Amino acid sequence: MNHLVEMSSLTTNEIYDLLTEARFFKNGKVWRPLEQKFVANLFFEPSTRTRFSFEVAEKKLGLEVLNFTAESSSVQKGESLYDTIRTLEEIGTDAVVIRHQQDRYFDELINQVSIPILNAGDGCGNHPTQSLLDLFTIQEEFGSFEGLNIVIVGDVLHSRVARSNADVLKRLGANVFVSGPIEWFDDSLGNYISMDDAIEVADVMMMLRIQHERHEGQMNDTKEVYHQQYGLTLEREQRMKANSIIMHPAPVNRGVEIASELVESRKSRIFKQMHNGVFVRMAVLKRAMSQTAIQRGKKVCQHF
Amino acid sequence: MNHLVEMSSLTTNEIYDLLTEARFFKNGKVWRPLEQKFVANLFFEPSTRTRFSFEVAEKKLGLEVLNFTAESSSVQKGESLYDTIRTLEEIGTDAVVIRHQQDRYFDELINQVSIPILNAGDGCGNHPTQSLLDLFTIQEEFGSFEGLNIVIVGDVLHSRVARSNADVLKRLGANVFVSGPIEWFDDSLGNYISMDDAIEVADVMMMLRIQHERHEGQMNDTKEVYHQQYGLTLEREQRMKANSIIMHPAPVNRGVEIASELVESRKSRIFKQMHNGVFVRMAVLKRAMSQTAIQRGKKVCQHF
Amino acid sequence: MNHLVEMSSLTTNEIYDLLTEARFFKNGKVWRPLEQKFVANLFFEPSTRTRFSFEVAEKKLGLEVLNFTAESSSVQKGESLYDTIRTLEEIGTDAVVIRHQQDRYFDELINQVSIPILNAGDGCGNHPTQSLLDLFTIQEEFGSFEGLNIVIVGDVLHSRVARSNADVLKRLGANVFVSGPIEWFDDSLGNYISMDDAIEVADVMMMLRIQHERHEGQMNDTKEVYHQQYGLTLEREQRMKANSIIMHPAPVNRGVEIASELVESRKSRIFKQMHNGVFVRMAVLKRAMSQTAIQRGKKVCQHF
Repeated sequence: MNHLVEMSSLTTNEIYDLLTEARFFKNGKVWRPLEQKFVANLFFEPSTRTRFSFEVAEKKLGLEVLNFTAESSSVQKGESLYDTIRTLEEIGTDAVVIRHQQDRYFDELINQVSIPILNAGDGCGNHPTQSLLDLFTIQEEFGSFEGLNIVIVGDVLHSRVARSNADVLKRLGANVFVSGPIEWFDDSLGNYISMDDAIEVADVMMMLRIQHERHEGQMNDTKEVYHQQYGLTLEREQRMKANSIIMHPAPVNRGVEIASELVESRKSRIFKQMHNGVFVRMAVLKRAMSQTAIQRGKKVCQHF
Repeated sequence: MNHLVEMSSLTTNEIYDLLTEARFFKNGKVWRPLEQKFVANLFFEPSTRTRFSFEVAEKKLGLEVLNFTAESSSVQKGESLYDTIRTLEEIGTDAVVIRHQQDRYFDELINQVSIPILNAGDGCGNHPTQSLLDLFTIQEEFGSFEGLNIVIVGDVLHSRVARSNADVLKRLGANVFVSGPIEWFDDSLGNYISMDDAIEVADVMMMLRIQHERHEGQMNDTKEVYHQQYGLTLEREQRMKANSIIMHPAPVNRGVEIASELVESRKSRIFKQMHNGVFVRMAVLKRAMSQTAIQRGKKVCQHF
Repeated sequence: MNHLVEMSSLTTNEIYDLLTEARFFKNGKVWRPLEQKFVANLFFEPSTRTRFSFEVAEKKLGLEVLNFTAESSSVQKGESLYDTIRTLEEIGTDAVVIRHQQDRYFDELINQVSIPILNAGDGCGNHPTQSLLDLFTIQEEFGSFEGLNIVIVGDVLHSRVARSNADVLKRLGANVFVSGPIEWFDDSLGNYISMDDAIEVADVMMMLRIQHERHEGQMNDTKEVYHQQYGLTLEREQRMKANSIIMHPAPVNRGVEIASELVESRKSRIFKQMHNGVFVRMAVLKRAMSQTAIQRGKKVCQHF
């Protein structure tokens, strides 16, 4: 079963294969299943980028899309995630994309359901397609990951991508540093570095979103202070290395983690990350659909 | 006009025709209208199974799907159901699927609108496609309905399917019994039978969902008691007849009306019911679309 | 960039071209882009007619539809409209249809985004596709606009279409009058006329919706009084000119601005307006898609 729930379950080869497939899609490759296939998108938390990026990817692959929302479903009557997915499976869904507020919601599911689960974000845990699109964008920029200095800045403890990005980037040969408020620092991700040192050495400044919804009451009136201390200010950006880039998973808090003017600046790859996300998700969906096909002993895909 | 609002308006022949058509679809038959056709799904109450089952059925038939939700519609400005449906009709909708909390919401509509209404559940009233999928599942199992002992268990008064299932099953030759709390018993459906007698004679144990939302405050802390008295326990299941089956419209309250372990057990057809629902709805939609076609004097369907 | 945000930005020729294109579509013309194209519908306010009319139009043109709702998007995390649209653009959206509660929400956007914005209603401001479908319906009825007496009745100050309809109708040669409560009168739209005079001279009685949600507390228990004073009663309708028509953007408050029995009467074009709305929106979408095509230097459309 080709679930994609966390980056750590992918081998390095599998990661490179997905990046290569995404590159093919970005270059115009067309792939569609031979038979009508259904994918259900189950988003239990708000999302714009991930949700619509998946939907566009699905439609570019010619898949039929079922958009599930918790509010209008039998989850309101207490139905479990397992029973919900089993239901979708019975009515003909070939894969499910899930965002859920519960950490590792998928642990109870992956051995019990027989359609692939594509994790679109779980609690403070994982967000593998975001990690893959980050990798894709870095690879597109630098060709390889070997020896790159990557600084992850912000609330690494509550970030879905900080840990999995740190782990996989180290696996692929990059040097990972962490910056931001020292109370949010976790040394298992990488060595701490101050913002002013970071911008001198970084090839990639990977800014995380300050999740105001998680820091209610603690950060009021201090956005400007945060920005001056830990943000990517206009002044700091001037001191970044010549070919270095700025990344952010978005939505951006403009003027907090990054100066508003920098969001679409020369070094920023923020909107390019979103653009690349579609191709990465096409690759992930193709992998899930192909697996289904092989499991059922039928040839269902064609290349043209 | 080929509305489908309640089982009692279908002749026995029409029921068998729909079951046969559904069987063809389950066996791989493909049917699509020759022209682009639109179906709107109007769900005024939460639903997972029925809503997505209809949507999958629609897309398997190549129909264009419009998903209407009350929250984001002009129903918020006080627009009536009649005006809403007339609006959808004018903009090109060829059929509407409706779930609504009001009993017999369709009475005011069926003679006033000129597109078919497919009832996906009204208040405590009807749910004809659920009845049809129940019939389909029983027919698939036993070949015919003649002489089968079918026990309907639970809150028959508030169930959308209890009465219409009881009526149609008797019409088709089955013996219908009712079990569960005596205060919920309605002798117009069938004779009362205790759970312990029921399991000895039943070919089909048709469990109903306890609608906790309707029994607020009355059933707290008594789920285990209910399960022991009126539920399908592991122990009772052991005493069921050799070829008997268990059905439930779902969502299941695991451990209340049925032991959690039995939901996917050998005798259970609960997930098969969901699976069959798609084909039954394809048959119902084809009937609605064909009617539209004939009414307008155009040939719009092809078989291939 | 072929935005459509307000009627005043269209030349008279462009208006006639759109009406002609809409006529072609009503007469069965088929046009589809050669490549897969995506349109996102962003409705920040409830809507039935406009939202589904756009969706049907999009699907008739073979466009892929993304239905965005504010509740389930990153707007919940404070993301701006600009960042939302830029996101949709990056993931491959070719045009956005937007309804938003803020007057002229588009002013900040139209020079910053590179995909067409089709305004589906802004605050109390504009609703250009409603204006176009009104024009289409009048043209269909009378052939031209020259010399027609058109009376706009109701809350012209809060109406999205009153001003833009008044302006464009005068531009096209019609005589525009305003009726209804004098305290809502705005002489920049046209001369005031009493209801009883209006019905004697009007070729078109263009009724506006009383927006109860905007007059909370002011109009309780006075609906019948309003109807008698300013409504189109059965009695008044009898005195209308022989070939005159009644229009209303809907949803109608039956028995307030118009007698319920008149909604589908001989003179009413209310449901025809909805019907025509689809073709007008197809014309507007085709214009937006063609523009995109030309801008990118590719041939993307075909006529067949």
